[in-house]
Amino acid sequence: MISALATDLYELTMAAGYWRAGLLEPATFELFIRRLPSRRSYLIAAGLDDALEYLEGLRFSDSERAWLGDLPQFAHIPREFFDDYLRTFTFTGRVWAIPEGTPVFAGEPLLRVTAPLPAAQIVETALLAIVGFQTNVAAKAARIVDAAQGRPVIEFGARRAHGLGASLAAARAAFIGGCAGTSYVEAARRYGIPASGTMAHSWIQSFATEVAAFREFSRSFEAFGVYLLDTYDTIGAATTLIEAGLKPPMVRLDSGDLVALARQVRAMLDRAGLRDTRIFATGDLDEDRIAEILAAGAPIDGFGVGTMLSTVADAPALSAVYKLVQVERHHERVDVVKLSPGKETWPEPKQVWRVVEGGRAVRDVVAAEDESPIPGATALLTPAMQDGRRVQPSSSLVTLQEHCRQSLAILPPAIRALDAEAAFPVVISDRLAAAGLSAKELHI
Amino acid sequence: MISALATDLYELTMAAGYWRAGLLEPATFELFIRRLPSRRSYLIAAGLDDALEYLEGLRFSDSERAWLGDLPQFAHIPREFFDDYLRTFTFTGRVWAIPEGTPVFAGEPLLRVTAPLPAAQIVETALLAIVGFQTNVAAKAARIVDAAQGRPVIEFGARRAHGLGASLAAARAAFIGGCAGTSYVEAARRYGIPASGTMAHSWIQSFATEVAAFREFSRSFEAFGVYLLDTYDTIGAATTLIEAGLKPPMVRLDSGDLVALARQVRAMLDRAGLRDTRIFATGDLDEDRIAEILAAGAPIDGFGVGTMLSTVADAPALSAVYKLVQVERHHERVDVVKLSPGKETWPEPKQVWRVVEGGRAVRDVVAAEDESPIPGATALLTPAMQDGRRVQPSSSLVTLQEHCRQSLAILPPAIRALDAEAAFPVVISDRLAAAGLSAKELHI
Repeated sequence: MISALATDLYELTMAAGYWRAGLLEPATFELFIRRLPSRRSYLIAAGLDDALEYLEGLRFSDSERAWLGDLPQFAHIPREFFDDYLRTFTFTGRVWAIPEGTPVFAGEPLLRVTAPLPAAQIVETALLAIVGFQTNVAAKAARIVDAAQGRPVIEFGARRAHGLGASLAAARAAFIGGCAGTSYVEAARRYGIPASGTMAHSWIQSFATEVAAFREFSRSFEAFGVYLLDTYDTIGAATTLIEAGLKPPMVRLDSGDLVALARQVRAMLDRAGLRDTRIFATGDLDEDRIAEILAAGAPIDGFGVGTMLSTVADAPALSAVYKLVQVERHHERVDVVKLSPGKETWPEPKQVWRVVEGGRAVRDVVAAEDESPIPGATALLTPAMQDGRRVQPSSSLVTLQEHCRQSLAILPPAIRALDAEAAFPVVISDRLAAAGLSAKELHI
Repeated sequence: MISALATDLYELTMAAGYWRAGLLEPATFELFIRRLPSRRSYLIAAGLDDALEYLEGLRFSDSERAWLGDLPQFAHIPREFFDDYLRTFTFTGRVWAIPEGTPVFAGEPLLRVTAPLPAAQIVETALLAIVGFQTNVAAKAARIVDAAQGRPVIEFGARRAHGLGASLAAARAAFIGGCAGTSYVEAARRYGIPASGTMAHSWIQSFATEVAAFREFSRSFEAFGVYLLDTYDTIGAATTLIEAGLKPPMVRLDSGDLVALARQVRAMLDRAGLRDTRIFATGDLDEDRIAEILAAGAPIDGFGVGTMLSTVADAPALSAVYKLVQVERHHERVDVVKLSPGKETWPEPKQVWRVVEGGRAVRDVVAAEDESPIPGATALLTPAMQDGRRVQPSSSLVTLQEHCRQSLAILPPAIRALDAEAAFPVVISDRLAAAGLSAKELHI
């Protein structure tokens, strides 16, 4: 259960202000990514299930209300806000969302939240933090998996993630994006992701000799043994393994010139008849490094990717925002916009249509939610929560991963290139464009 | 309570393997940062208190043990490991640490952990994730606070952090590094950090007119009111505020040319007699942008920094590692090293001495822990945990922030420059250097 205080103070002061001003009618906010990070031509929607769990559990405990009411910022807020409104507060709203695993582009609402204005406001911070991070990691994972050209990529980033909550979320999102497993045990248990691991240098160091360490490892973990070679000297360790007569399922290279070492070790293993021993590589890898290594023809069979994936090191934050698009005033719906330079928003609740022609996604259309369906196009936003309750059970991560794989497969190849050779066309409907223009004129 | 499964699988398979091999004697690991990120000349130790809380709470629940024992990787591990060893497992070790808020440099152990080998191994992943992230954020905060030249910096990054756990940890570390407050309410409540907030564009949009939104805000939050000006047009909003006769304590600029707008708004406020109204700026700020804005003479009185701080956007991961330096074999202590290219380690448990001359820190010396004290120098590593229990209560964050401020103040000014004009001298003691050399010879 996440605390209801897991939000920014201004969400709570504004909620109190709305309540005091009687602004309790439904409002609609949309969560979207303003711009794609550099070198990205898509992101992968992720984090929805955790977001829904947060919304379902949202409550203010007695001690939280008492603490909050004592903050000086709330000195002029009538006590009924804390004693009545927040005491019985739950999230009773409606959420439409793009399913996890779907490729998404800048400006497309990933979530559309409709709830009484104070409630819709309070959840902003958590929704952004949950969905923004996982959407970023899932896309990074998809890029890395693409670069690995069918070789398994294992997520190894728990130790470098931004705390253990991030380790867990990163493992989840990385699996949706296509990783074959995770080293992070809590994620494996919670989400059913295959758990994977090797050995650390400390294993080797803990024994009097490297060969003793290898032999003991073989005794306990034969079928799952991934032998780390670089503690003292990679080629020396490979020689030791072979001379000891061990039959390692896999060896791990973690430092040095991975291409040259993989070739040398492959040749040594082959000469020793260990043709089934696979070579696994780790060590500050990302999609570019993997592409380079494979382009150089390195005989590497799988990759462990840590830091660069779990922190999305080249683009650690998305410009994820949550913007008001419609309020109700005396039961009248009013569309609203923001006109801040470089941060303008489109009014009205929206739907995103993905147009697929000949088995290939050709463009998305962002339209008002009540515009007519576009023939042959799929509506990406679907109901996720009604009256504060999920409308369907959580999907398994395997299902989400498969959805991601299939949805990526129909994108134009140029969109999946590591260097973002093209932008996927995202078109604003005529009605939305006109509404945006007239809203702008209204305020100038 | 953090799950004992909050670790990498290989920590648990190695622990099982050590247990099976009878390697239960104490081992010592050290946590350090291999290299400073680019443009950094120091980091700020942080996260220790959370790390100790994790160690104190470490247990395997029955269901965790059952789940773990069923993993195929453990098929050859005798059941006693799960049914006896893990059932009664607690962390009973000793931790020495550099206090939170202390500036630290590459290669210096921030934590030294001595515990039975399996236990010392299991905690690796969590210690790295907890301490690595907070150490990184605290340093980023210190840089930003330096750039603001005495103006308050508020941490606003919860929404862009890597999930809500990261939001909490970032707020904590940013305060240690010198931030004056946080927007993240849960962090304010848990750690006693001053909570701070403004208003969002949605507040303005929720009312029929901007002036109605300002008036209602004034009614509820007079003394704490920070009026956001850029929803439609910054200068127009400033005019509206003034013409409405409001007396805002503070206004917020969030987009556009902050320098030019701050000047214009300052002049408008002054002409209206609102000399006490302060100007607060936000919007993708970091230390460089703040330095630029202030160098241009912008009349800005405080800064809210979000994304760049809570994700440490320019250096989102430290090369934090946790390396075995000593094991015991049959009650004999044996120093160990790792020789992987570019990742070599120094053997032996260590102490870090900070030498201060004439009120100025002049160098650090990394020595073996049992070398004689260096006259006039301070030993940075001090006891934090003995037999699995803290040796002293947690310090308040205010105390840690003040310790940070004072410790930074005695660093050479060049070390605090945003562009890392110099590296702080960190010297390896003669004994350690000789031990490293002989260890290397032993393995070649």
